[in-house]
Amino acid sequence: MTNLKFARRLIVCSTLAMLALCLAARGDDPLPSWNEGKAKQAIVDFVAGTTTQDSPEFVPPSERIAVFDNDGTLWSEKPLYFQLAFAMDRVKTLSPQHPEWKEKQPFKAVLKDDLKAVLAAGKHGLLEILIAGHSGMTTDEFENIVSEWIHTARHPTTKRLYTEMVFQPMLELLAYFRANGFKTYIVSGGGIEFMRPWSERVYGIPPEQVIGSSIKVQFELRDGKPVLVRLPEIDFIDDKEGKPVGIHKFIGRRPIAAFGNSDGDMQMLQWTSAGTGARLGLIVHHTDADREWAYDRDSSVGRLDKALDEATKNRWTVVDMRKDWQRVFPSDK
Amino acid sequence: MTNLKFARRLIVCSTLAMLALCLAARGDDPLPSWNEGKAKQAIVDFVAGTTTQDSPEFVPPSERIAVFDNDGTLWSEKPLYFQLAFAMDRVKTLSPQHPEWKEKQPFKAVLKDDLKAVLAAGKHGLLEILIAGHSGMTTDEFENIVSEWIHTARHPTTKRLYTEMVFQPMLELLAYFRANGFKTYIVSGGGIEFMRPWSERVYGIPPEQVIGSSIKVQFELRDGKPVLVRLPEIDFIDDKEGKPVGIHKFIGRRPIAAFGNSDGDMQMLQWTSAGTGARLGLIVHHTDADREWAYDRDSSVGRLDKALDEATKNRWTVVDMRKDWQRVFPSDK
Repeated sequence: MTNLKFARRLIVCSTLAMLALCLAARGDDPLPSWNEGKAKQAIVDFVAGTTTQDSPEFVPPSERIAVFDNDGTLWSEKPLYFQLAFAMDRVKTLSPQHPEWKEKQPFKAVLKDDLKAVLAAGKHGLLEILIAGHSGMTTDEFENIVSEWIHTARHPTTKRLYTEMVFQPMLELLAYFRANGFKTYIVSGGGIEFMRPWSERVYGIPPEQVIGSSIKVQFELRDGKPVLVRLPEIDFIDDKEGKPVGIHKFIGRRPIAAFGNSDGDMQMLQWTSAGTGARLGLIVHHTDADREWAYDRDSSVGRLDKALDEATKNRWTVVDMRKDWQRVFPSDK
Repeated sequence: MTNLKFARRLIVCSTLAMLALCLAARGDDPLPSWNEGKAKQAIVDFVAGTTTQDSPEFVPPSERIAVFDNDGTLWSEKPLYFQLAFAMDRVKTLSPQHPEWKEKQPFKAVLKDDLKAVLAAGKHGLLEILIAGHSGMTTDEFENIVSEWIHTARHPTTKRLYTEMVFQPMLELLAYFRANGFKTYIVSGGGIEFMRPWSERVYGIPPEQVIGSSIKVQFELRDGKPVLVRLPEIDFIDDKEGKPVGIHKFIGRRPIAAFGNSDGDMQMLQWTSAGTGARLGLIVHHTDADREWAYDRDSSVGRLDKALDEATKNRWTVVDMRKDWQRVFPSDK
């Protein structure tokens, strides 16, 4: 064979090989941890409809915005919101400088690891715990504190790192949406600065696409060096009616897909669904006491009651975790 | 010539042609409206340094964030901030429903087109004008009002559309940064909802990358349909100390390049410059009374005084509009 013929054959072969690879990739299931069923079908149909150029539901890439709640939608939230575990650890770390906390609720309950009493302290008490450990330092200092905690702290019952308790099917869904030109955002009631230090590594969502609750920060020059200082004052609560407000504030356009799991996400799903054209509203229903947790209408953490009724009315997709998810966590087989 | 030989020659030729095209494109000046000089060199050096893989100043794409003030940096701001012209037009439109405005300042001054008296009304008066025309409707309604105005209203002296008064050199700079993997953001004292309806069309900056001042909005169900209603209450002032706060809130990481033109941008440039690694701070100095306007330390609109002193201290690049810009507006020859 002449060199030329060999080169020609090489080109033909490698082209065929690439074609085969492409076909294989197209045939691959982008959602392998989702069992076949209504929920998976609704997701795949929505993505196909909005991204196929000559489909009546086609949406240009710049408007492909998908928003995801975090607690209970992308990772677990039991027995307590993971950020509350962080805040309780902060109170313990700071307690030597606050001897008065030994006798003062809700701090006394935190120091005794009395979760029941902590939760019984109500919204005001929880806020006190959060603010005590979340303010008074610069934003750079807080970022370091969060990063260290998320790399080392372990869940009280599973003993895993919290970032190992993210949902494998949702990681696949995030990647699938991005591969189809969607911008994926977190819209969480949790603290924006609690999520940003690790959202890119864990979810592939960069800090500028994380929306959450926040406390006020203030610009200061310290020894001529500019810093942002965290103040003990709430700036914004990104929950319930706050979610569409946060979406409007940070993104400035209406999403076409929204994913949540509780009543705190209801208004976000309503706002998303009310736009014209194809819309996807999806609720993760925690129905799996064996692999994760089972709860809905009566749960104090992640209550799903009104939003479950609204789901039927609005034809949102309700994911039955037990039936629809082949795996829950990345470490599941 | 055999078919095979012809095909081979065709491949060689087309490869050479593509190479030539690539080289030509590389040789093309990405900033043709910038005269050669220190300012242009600083910009080109910064981009080369931060985007060349083996440069000591290399910055990964995800951290290439560049922030731009709007009024006076991307478009003109004389004789008055363009949003104030919009707000005054709104007052005129709404005046039939407010007969009391005929005798009440600052509305009386607006209705008489007495700009001097309008500006003399001070911050509180300006706020009254803004809120009167900017609140009370849904966010969708406000977006329509802005869109219609920006497509039809004309500048009082040049008689051009306001979007024709953007700076050609800055449009080139925005495109140049984006072509080099930067995410470009607006960080303006102006209203976030005043800029978002046209920022993508005019600057190539999508709504979710526009940060600005805002009024509060509230989620409501009207006849079962969710809407966001604009309230007559300030939410956030994105100016001076507010700019680094806004950057932190919306982006969550420190930019590596910041562009401004007035004292209102000083803290944003300080915050940007104080990070480690390569940084670019740039100030547009309005020195061209013939083609645009000339003003700095004594101007009430766009005052550039402290930031000009800080520029020397921090080695920010100061653009001399008259000398550094070959063209000012897109329509200039």
